[in-house]
Amino acid sequence: MRYRLTLSYRGTRYAGWQRQDNAVSVQQVVEEGVSKLAGVPVRVTGASRTDAGVHARGQVAHLNLDRPLPTRALVHGVNPHLPEDIRVLAAEEVEETFHARKSALGKEYRYRLSRAEVVSALDSLFVVPVSGRIDLDRMTRAAAFLPGRHDFSAFALAGGSHGQPFRTVRDASWSEQGAEIVFSVTGDGFLRGMVRALVGTLIEVGLGRREPESFADLLQGRPRSAAGPTAPAQGLVLERVFYPGK
Amino acid sequence: MRYRLTLSYRGTRYAGWQRQDNAVSVQQVVEEGVSKLAGVPVRVTGASRTDAGVHARGQVAHLNLDRPLPTRALVHGVNPHLPEDIRVLAAEEVEETFHARKSALGKEYRYRLSRAEVVSALDSLFVVPVSGRIDLDRMTRAAAFLPGRHDFSAFALAGGSHGQPFRTVRDASWSEQGAEIVFSVTGDGFLRGMVRALVGTLIEVGLGRREPESFADLLQGRPRSAAGPTAPAQGLVLERVFYPGK
Repeated sequence: MRYRLTLSYRGTRYAGWQRQDNAVSVQQVVEEGVSKLAGVPVRVTGASRTDAGVHARGQVAHLNLDRPLPTRALVHGVNPHLPEDIRVLAAEEVEETFHARKSALGKEYRYRLSRAEVVSALDSLFVVPVSGRIDLDRMTRAAAFLPGRHDFSAFALAGGSHGQPFRTVRDASWSEQGAEIVFSVTGDGFLRGMVRALVGTLIEVGLGRREPESFADLLQGRPRSAAGPTAPAQGLVLERVFYPGK
Repeated sequence: MRYRLTLSYRGTRYAGWQRQDNAVSVQQVVEEGVSKLAGVPVRVTGASRTDAGVHARGQVAHLNLDRPLPTRALVHGVNPHLPEDIRVLAAEEVEETFHARKSALGKEYRYRLSRAEVVSALDSLFVVPVSGRIDLDRMTRAAAFLPGRHDFSAFALAGGSHGQPFRTVRDASWSEQGAEIVFSVTGDGFLRGMVRALVGTLIEVGLGRREPESFADLLQGRPRSAAGPTAPAQGLVLERVFYPGK
């Protein structure tokens, strides 16, 4: 029997979603929690390989169990085996053909910046400080270049082997709430490090170091070095993963 | 020279604001940070003695320095000496007569509850889960009894020596945002444990275990045992401290 889990986590303490040899990953901790409940080793496959320090409000994963369990147990029976910074939010039975990564139609990410002189300790795990002089209009104009199918090589983690570099962005926009400015981006898929490279480059636009119109050129398969720096992980949240019929 | 600091902190790791012999307090950590910058031991006096685990978005404290420092240094020079869960948000010079606690006209606290089946790991440091069946209308009716000057003995920490138990509440209300319900209360002062005892009792009202009208009686100097339990610390935030002329 195959199950789909929806998970949230604070990425602060983890080396990202994906299992690693010498560091604690979210995947490993979730697998250990589910395995304790199931009484046998269980593998869990995630939709998004979030990087070290990146958070998730709605990561999705699938797993197989030879002996079925009530979906309620996969939520309320697994959570007591997890640290409080990882929570199973929901579980449901799915078809054997469902695959958390391959069945996904798209994902939504958000990135939080703050123009406050000092970021409150209540927000500092999730928000990255930025100069109060940053120009949101310029960043909005640059973000308007993103929707559509483009070669995002300029925003792909250097050295990553990401096959073909074309991705389709559906929506990309900035919103403002008090001292915070938030970048939301939805797309059919993202190259490794892509959202953080977009944000780092958009910040350069906002600070006047780069023109909004430079995005037209950057989206035509330029090298990583043509774009701006990678923004810190702590500002990024995987908000949702989209599937057919939902 | 006397200075006023505005501070935020996540209370999760701390035994409350006030210095203690065998536990790490926010006051101690702030004093150590300021002392490192000043090069001499500095005492810091807080407006509110927040309990263990309680957070602050706008705690206020005062301190004296024999050798004056720029207020900018008290923010950007102290923060590097503090852990990331405590931040100095602002500093200003004040009159020698200013006293963080004695000069305060009032305070605002907020308490966050969530009716979600599982609270997201992004919120769980600051939010307390509650049954989805809780009745917000009943809690709103009960909260309407709070504004005014009352004997809050029923909501004061048992065993606390709090002198006279009369306090004036200015506003008390519930608001709703998605699965979250938030209690906001402003008053001229609060007895120890008062907000959490109010919330614990209001939850009993919301769950139908107690009538909203029972607050009329509870506010007339009943013993602590007449009211409901103390709600967990993690949901509570000291939002602001009010002073004359601000």
